[in-house]
Amino acid sequence: MADFELDPDPTRWGRGDGEGLSPATSAFLAEHLGAGNPQPSPSWDAVAVPQSRLTEAQRRALAEAVGDPHVDVSDEARRRRASGLSYLDLVARRTGSVAAPDVVVQPASAHQVAAVLRVAEDCGMAVITFGGGTSVVGGLRTAAIESPVISLDTARMADVLDIDAESMLVTVGPGIIGPDLERILATRGLTLGHYPQSWQRATIGGYAATRSAGQSSTGYGRSDEMIESVEIVTPRGLLRAGCVERSAAGPDLRGLIVGSEGAFGVITSVTLRVRPMPASSSYTAVVFGDYGRGVSAFRELAQHRATADVMRLSDPEETGATLAMSAPGGAMGTALDAYLRARRVAGATSLAILGWEGDAATVAARRLAALRILRRHGAVSLGPTVGDAWRRHRFDGPLLRDDLMDAGYLVETLETATTWSRLLDLRQSVREALVGSLGCGGRAPWVMSHISHVYDTSASLYFTIVAPAADDPAAQWRSAKSAATDAIAASGATITHHHGVGRDHAPWLEAEVGPVGLDVLRAVKASLDPAGVLNPGVLGLG
Amino acid sequence: MADFELDPDPTRWGRGDGEGLSPATSAFLAEHLGAGNPQPSPSWDAVAVPQSRLTEAQRRALAEAVGDPHVDVSDEARRRRASGLSYLDLVARRTGSVAAPDVVVQPASAHQVAAVLRVAEDCGMAVITFGGGTSVVGGLRTAAIESPVISLDTARMADVLDIDAESMLVTVGPGIIGPDLERILATRGLTLGHYPQSWQRATIGGYAATRSAGQSSTGYGRSDEMIESVEIVTPRGLLRAGCVERSAAGPDLRGLIVGSEGAFGVITSVTLRVRPMPASSSYTAVVFGDYGRGVSAFRELAQHRATADVMRLSDPEETGATLAMSAPGGAMGTALDAYLRARRVAGATSLAILGWEGDAATVAARRLAALRILRRHGAVSLGPTVGDAWRRHRFDGPLLRDDLMDAGYLVETLETATTWSRLLDLRQSVREALVGSLGCGGRAPWVMSHISHVYDTSASLYFTIVAPAADDPAAQWRSAKSAATDAIAASGATITHHHGVGRDHAPWLEAEVGPVGLDVLRAVKASLDPAGVLNPGVLGLG
Repeated sequence: MADFELDPDPTRWGRGDGEGLSPATSAFLAEHLGAGNPQPSPSWDAVAVPQSRLTEAQRRALAEAVGDPHVDVSDEARRRRASGLSYLDLVARRTGSVAAPDVVVQPASAHQVAAVLRVAEDCGMAVITFGGGTSVVGGLRTAAIESPVISLDTARMADVLDIDAESMLVTVGPGIIGPDLERILATRGLTLGHYPQSWQRATIGGYAATRSAGQSSTGYGRSDEMIESVEIVTPRGLLRAGCVERSAAGPDLRGLIVGSEGAFGVITSVTLRVRPMPASSSYTAVVFGDYGRGVSAFRELAQHRATADVMRLSDPEETGATLAMSAPGGAMGTALDAYLRARRVAGATSLAILGWEGDAATVAARRLAALRILRRHGAVSLGPTVGDAWRRHRFDGPLLRDDLMDAGYLVETLETATTWSRLLDLRQSVREALVGSLGCGGRAPWVMSHISHVYDTSASLYFTIVAPAADDPAAQWRSAKSAATDAIAASGATITHHHGVGRDHAPWLEAEVGPVGLDVLRAVKASLDPAGVLNPGVLGLG
Repeated sequence: MADFELDPDPTRWGRGDGEGLSPATSAFLAEHLGAGNPQPSPSWDAVAVPQSRLTEAQRRALAEAVGDPHVDVSDEARRRRASGLSYLDLVARRTGSVAAPDVVVQPASAHQVAAVLRVAEDCGMAVITFGGGTSVVGGLRTAAIESPVISLDTARMADVLDIDAESMLVTVGPGIIGPDLERILATRGLTLGHYPQSWQRATIGGYAATRSAGQSSTGYGRSDEMIESVEIVTPRGLLRAGCVERSAAGPDLRGLIVGSEGAFGVITSVTLRVRPMPASSSYTAVVFGDYGRGVSAFRELAQHRATADVMRLSDPEETGATLAMSAPGGAMGTALDAYLRARRVAGATSLAILGWEGDAATVAARRLAALRILRRHGAVSLGPTVGDAWRRHRFDGPLLRDDLMDAGYLVETLETATTWSRLLDLRQSVREALVGSLGCGGRAPWVMSHISHVYDTSASLYFTIVAPAADDPAAQWRSAKSAATDAIAASGATITHHHGVGRDHAPWLEAEVGPVGLDVLRAVKASLDPAGVLNPGVLGLG
């Protein structure tokens, strides 16, 4: 199976440098949370998986569907598709044994996918589509599935199928990853401009299945705004949803397939809008002495069509942590430090990162217009050094997770979105829920957040939480997750802005869509997947 | 029933000045199509409707649901809700008798709507939601419905329920019309900016039910892009779809409800994004000596984020007709005439209208950037007079329909959208289909089109067709509609960009969404409306 190419250590986010937390970070954590209780991570090879339940007859049927070399029951292949990268997934791996699919298959076409689904229906097996394996909400977790599980890996459907440069459209197989797609688009002067933190591993099929948003989505649009059409193979046949960017031909089936997280079918191709490769870019950082003024500034940018392509506003807690944890003498720390000293401000500041991309004249004009608004709200510019430093390290955030867990801390991120008028209240109530759930011995967890995406009517909030890990980290996480998501649902905000539902958010989906909405999802599921073979449990379905 | 307030003459688009076609228009038609065979329109009061089949028991049940004064079985009330304003609807009215609903009810709340739906289920009646009555695709036509029909008029649910100015959101009842909403928003310095040609009569509930687009939708977004959430009452309960502008909480149910054309439930409130009222605006007209260069210019504007808020590019046929039919000495004719004389160009030009709205500085900057691109593609500016003339008459187009029918011509509009790379071919194949179907005696129909909306990847084409009416105008229309829509479907374009599906486009919905897509729609319908009481036949559903 030479066509299997995955990262070497999928127990971790994928790229930890093995050097652990920096001294500055350790000192910050010790001061605010107390020392962690180090929990070394077992080596990847030592994580046990249950024996495969696949029968020889089933193996032969799958081999007929996709070809013998593309059916794998080895422990190694199954371990790698055992789950995603949610906190619960990582906690489970640290116990030394994980639930895993019974077989991994790699179809090469929509036709082969249909054949795999027929085998699954005939044999009463479940099918979980596996792309980059980066779900952080339990979308790939097999633990609660009773029937034998087929992991349908999309790695062999990873081609660029068509580029229509005149219409700025690219059609790809679901298994291609962002870096490979960008490399090919670059040769035509094009870019997708989609940079989720999982960019180095996540597949475009995964973007479509989960409505991913990236760091530049304020400017380039979310994945669900980029998708012109999507083809999925269901147990009841092939469905191509979406014909052209906008249509009035009845209900929007494209939006129904996008975000269906493998519950309705297997995505076999995606057509996406691309953009001209930007000739220039400008990233900058500004600081507000007051978080509320920063929020007002971001709101004005959003509502007066003056947005940057990347917009990120850290609250005082995140700004403080960024400052404390940045390398001594590094650009971010030094620039912020200088600002704080000059202003005699202590800790209550908010750091904003803004980035513009495009042709040089337009970038300059947009930047100027935005900075005018930002300054009116009291923003002080830190210059391009800090912005560029953020950009260089834009994918590094998740790497800290493994190091923090090694050092004995719970670390989690969660995200939501609500209207501008409710944003400050929402931040407060989520903070209180997390502090109430995770505080112990008079010590509060470190809860920080930033606005990661802005819209005319609303903005997202992205929380990062660090706390000393309890003896039962899964139970500790469940309690904190429940408290936070209950608070989000009670405030009328969305339970997830871009991580998706998976299994971790499924209990709250009804709070968002209502019982009748859930009935509709069940009806669609029953129509496309009557035997319930597709990713049972995801979205709370089946 | 003092709360019934409809336009005085709903047999016509609603505002004809009674003066008929201008001499210039009559001359143009006579020259290109031959004289029409005048068909006087019967007076509104003379149009007969069948006797209501409502039983006294049913009337009492409905009176219990909505209150006795809000149940009307009069011929006048039923005649007014007999259908919409499609060509087939207008043709039917000219025969002097039309199918009509058996009763008109006006609920005042979601609760009363639910009660009406229960009566309908209990009594085996159908329910057609009636807003402004402006469907041009047969969405309101009762003719083929066998069971007794309740017309559920939303006129009593026409309030502005909430304005969240901080988040730029307004929540309204479904029955409010655009002018009333804009008047109220204006007092808060806000605007929706949605101007379909039906603006004076169409309701916001109708926008949501049909995915309407307006003349400014390139800048302000289509109605389906403005809708933050929508509440609908179904026979199986209330569903609120949409929580915040963007979410990753699974499949998009908001997009499934928007565009459902009354087949899944009755929309009882809509929350929409609004914008700051523009402080200034600038409308201008330019002319291209070559249509293809105009298309390229519009494409570059769309793909380089240099769009105007209104963008409209007429093909040579539409430009020629505009010139010929405009009032002698009027702004448009004079300016175009001068251009044509100066350039010695005869008839092969393309007229473009562009409009920008916002604060003065931004309007000026955006206009400058767009004009730079337009000039590079050979555009010659006609100055603001022609643009302003277009703007003043922006809602007048449909008024011509009745006058043309009176004069003995078939007149129809149809619209589609496709990728930029297929746009010119699509225009050609639709033209050929229409000429093939409507041409007779060596005389071609007058087929003209304009690009009405542009996107990064695609653009819409809006066709207007005029031909001498045949003895059986309905059969003539069906043949032409089939030919055009077959050509559209064969080219992979959407069967409708903003008119909706109704009954007229329903036979082609499967060509667009496929058999599995249609199964999904049927499953959703069965889940929400198991007895099939809601607008039977619309979208081709049950």
